[in-house]
Amino acid sequence: MTRERLYLYDTTLRDGQQTQGVQFSTAEKVQIAKALDDLGVDYIEGGWPGANPTDSAFFDEAPQTRARLAAFGMTKRAGRSAANDDVLAAVMNAGTGTVCLVGKSHDYHVTAALGITLEENLENIGASIAHIVGQGREALYDAEHFFDGYNDNPEYALACCRAAHEAGARWIVLCDTNGGAMPSEVGRIVTEVIAAGIPGERLGIHTHNDTENAVACSLAAIESGARQVQGTLNGLGERCGNANLTSLIPTLLLKEPYASRFETGVSRAALAGLTRTSRMLDDILNRVPMRQSPYVGASAFAHKAGLHASAILKDPGTYEHIEPTLVGNQRIVPMSNQAGQSNLRRRLAEAGLTVDKDNPALGLILERIKQREDQGYSYDTAQASFELLARAALGEMPEFFEVKRYKVTVERRKNKYNKMISLSEAVVVVKVDGRKLLSVSESLDEDGSDRGPVNALSKALSKDLGQYSSVLEDMRLVDFKVRITQGGTEAVTRVIIDSEDGKGRRWSTVGVSPNIVDASFEALLDAIRWKLVRDCAGDA
Amino acid sequence: MTRERLYLYDTTLRDGQQTQGVQFSTAEKVQIAKALDDLGVDYIEGGWPGANPTDSAFFDEAPQTRARLAAFGMTKRAGRSAANDDVLAAVMNAGTGTVCLVGKSHDYHVTAALGITLEENLENIGASIAHIVGQGREALYDAEHFFDGYNDNPEYALACCRAAHEAGARWIVLCDTNGGAMPSEVGRIVTEVIAAGIPGERLGIHTHNDTENAVACSLAAIESGARQVQGTLNGLGERCGNANLTSLIPTLLLKEPYASRFETGVSRAALAGLTRTSRMLDDILNRVPMRQSPYVGASAFAHKAGLHASAILKDPGTYEHIEPTLVGNQRIVPMSNQAGQSNLRRRLAEAGLTVDKDNPALGLILERIKQREDQGYSYDTAQASFELLARAALGEMPEFFEVKRYKVTVERRKNKYNKMISLSEAVVVVKVDGRKLLSVSESLDEDGSDRGPVNALSKALSKDLGQYSSVLEDMRLVDFKVRITQGGTEAVTRVIIDSEDGKGRRWSTVGVSPNIVDASFEALLDAIRWKLVRDCAGDA
Repeated sequence: MTRERLYLYDTTLRDGQQTQGVQFSTAEKVQIAKALDDLGVDYIEGGWPGANPTDSAFFDEAPQTRARLAAFGMTKRAGRSAANDDVLAAVMNAGTGTVCLVGKSHDYHVTAALGITLEENLENIGASIAHIVGQGREALYDAEHFFDGYNDNPEYALACCRAAHEAGARWIVLCDTNGGAMPSEVGRIVTEVIAAGIPGERLGIHTHNDTENAVACSLAAIESGARQVQGTLNGLGERCGNANLTSLIPTLLLKEPYASRFETGVSRAALAGLTRTSRMLDDILNRVPMRQSPYVGASAFAHKAGLHASAILKDPGTYEHIEPTLVGNQRIVPMSNQAGQSNLRRRLAEAGLTVDKDNPALGLILERIKQREDQGYSYDTAQASFELLARAALGEMPEFFEVKRYKVTVERRKNKYNKMISLSEAVVVVKVDGRKLLSVSESLDEDGSDRGPVNALSKALSKDLGQYSSVLEDMRLVDFKVRITQGGTEAVTRVIIDSEDGKGRRWSTVGVSPNIVDASFEALLDAIRWKLVRDCAGDA
Repeated sequence: MTRERLYLYDTTLRDGQQTQGVQFSTAEKVQIAKALDDLGVDYIEGGWPGANPTDSAFFDEAPQTRARLAAFGMTKRAGRSAANDDVLAAVMNAGTGTVCLVGKSHDYHVTAALGITLEENLENIGASIAHIVGQGREALYDAEHFFDGYNDNPEYALACCRAAHEAGARWIVLCDTNGGAMPSEVGRIVTEVIAAGIPGERLGIHTHNDTENAVACSLAAIESGARQVQGTLNGLGERCGNANLTSLIPTLLLKEPYASRFETGVSRAALAGLTRTSRMLDDILNRVPMRQSPYVGASAFAHKAGLHASAILKDPGTYEHIEPTLVGNQRIVPMSNQAGQSNLRRRLAEAGLTVDKDNPALGLILERIKQREDQGYSYDTAQASFELLARAALGEMPEFFEVKRYKVTVERRKNKYNKMISLSEAVVVVKVDGRKLLSVSESLDEDGSDRGPVNALSKALSKDLGQYSSVLEDMRLVDFKVRITQGGTEAVTRVIIDSEDGKGRRWSTVGVSPNIVDASFEALLDAIRWKLVRDCAGDA
């Protein structure tokens, strides 16, 4: 049986950016677009060019993708031609092959919000879509408030869709803009729209999660015949978010009746990268990934109930709806039992540490990790710090050097040109090979601007470490993440530092303290120690 | 038209406690049970007495509730009578009026996991339920893995339900234990179960969120005739959680077709306490409430898109599916570079700044916001910094004081007891009322532990601000968020600080710099200035 093609339209960069607190830089948008393309979505909506400087900048620097890049805008205003509408012109100027225009489809919004006649709105839709098509572009019409509009005035809502369809729109997207529609309502209305003459293979569905039904409403529309589904990674989006593609994609690929009926652009291999992609987005947003997220959350395959955990050991299928590796996730069974220890041994082996099954250090490592996690440490991403902790427990950690003390100063004052500037300076005292070494460093970049206390400490620390200094020359700090978290009874600062070296290695370390500079210093020390283990463990 | 009664069964204290990282104390369980009772659920499942010490303790100290308290357990084992099963006896000993027993309904699990015959399992179900009923208690049968079981062997899955029904179970609860069922599948199977002779008014539905469809699966079961729905507050629960009652309850009360068809025990007045109840649970769990949560999240009625925000001003109904106060939540129109002028004017009005439509300062403010956002600032959450920026553009910002310079030092060294400690010290020089004032402060908490450079700066800054110092006495820093973001071409640090005062006000400010201490200082300054605007603008 041939499977029908179902199209995935991602709007993380546009509607996803409507999430409170989210504002992507151009570089971040490029990074996300590449990840979406690797995943295999069909469309990437990049933003609203002209409305937003970073959106325009993204289209200027857009990466080459297999996915079609779409610019978003709105239908032309009344009283002017599509060619003379400056807002529409800005959208067209982004030069994308696909253009998506939002327009009204609810009569109340036409008269109350736009203040134009119902006829004028139909003309705006038709003329705008015809303009896009006339320029050789692919056109989408986002029918705003379609479901509310259909409930109030089905004839008019359908007329809006027809205007777009007849003008040559490739897709008419039915939007539940305020997120209030119920799945069964969406299913029924999509069926009625198709019966009224808009073919299902021209229909898209765009839902929001205001009642926690965005995924279900999307599935209901697909079951009724819509063949394009819109959503965002991790369910980002205005208010409660858009339909979550991170949940929809594995459901469409792995669950019946969808798996047998539909084909998407996402391969099984790409699906196995889903968890990584989801975490990457959280990293960009500096969010703690939600443990409970369907498919990709750290708890999604965690079996806490005693009954479940013991059955899982016999047959994982007993309490898992899919095999976690299909989405790049993993099973978690409480550390206390056997599965926990075999998990640990696998992680140690990944770090090059072979440890016997009955080595008592395994229990010691698990206990120390638990203690440290109670204090606010997190070893999920900080693999290098995990390795150092394990090496210490196994007696396989050379000392290299000892930090006796450090002092860092940040000053803000006027310079000789009467301009406010900041200056950071760090002094670090270490003992290497029995000798005490003092180093001092500022924190100025090539332009003479101050980069802050952590940078100054990093420079001072690596400046003079005796025999080890030369090893650290090709190492640099590439990212720095800070989160306030709970350590025991008090809030503490957790710093994660990503480092890189000339050999192309990249590693993450963690530090925790109520003092942000001290937490950073701890993570820096781990970063340097890990590098020394790699490059001169033989000499120490 | 009389509405049908729909029953709400809460399992926050039992299945909710299966959430990774969640372990309620007895006192917390009592607090949650009281909140659930105030909300108006019909059943509160308190735990599995005998299996878990805190569960047993809860039943000993259970509060008096209008809701029926339920103890959870499992059907008796094969080869002994219900009266002689010690696990079942421990459940009965909790003395609750309602007892819910989980039992197998999937043939594979009976033979593979329990290792007994299909007949023995039916006998276990029937005899266990009959035993509960014989003791004058209300009995529920939780049909584990019902949907998977029904797909593999519908006759046997139905036979399990019939065994419970015929033995006198008040409710037969169809459980999607591993969370893999789809809403349309659940709807179809519930219809078939009713057609097979188990009345809908005896059927419950228990779903999990592994595909993000737990709420939708519950609604599908209700539409097909089930009259009890199980779930948890905030969707706590094993793996990805249970059906979220915090989403289901407002949907059932406010959305059609449910609102007209069904009656629950939740009143409109109790519904208005829903947001508070949800936040209380997060408080107990020491979790940051999810902004994007349906109905109760801080972002659930936040309108960021410029198009939306301007329509909201005309009529909130245009972009809101319900009135936020119905669930005790509130509308937010945040600032961002997507904002239109109307959005801006509304935000200004909320800050007490009335600005005419044609005031040129509006354009100036929008331009400054865009510039600052390009540098890495974010005004979505930092509403207080937005207000200060606007006041400056409007010429309505008193100067209060000027910071001439500051210097902060962090030192890590051994103390006299040879223990490594850190120490932070800040010196701030300000000019107030023409006088230059120097302040210095350390950063020690009550235990003598160092809280870091930002805390030291904050203390020094508020220590001596002349006439303003007394105003700042009731102010404190409650949260501190840091992220690395792109400012123009370079990575910069963005710091958001949340402050609070004795009048119960809470406000957020932002600072941006490559230097984390400097970014923090900027956010601190804004926090103090906002407080001064509020409390002594008249005097300045």
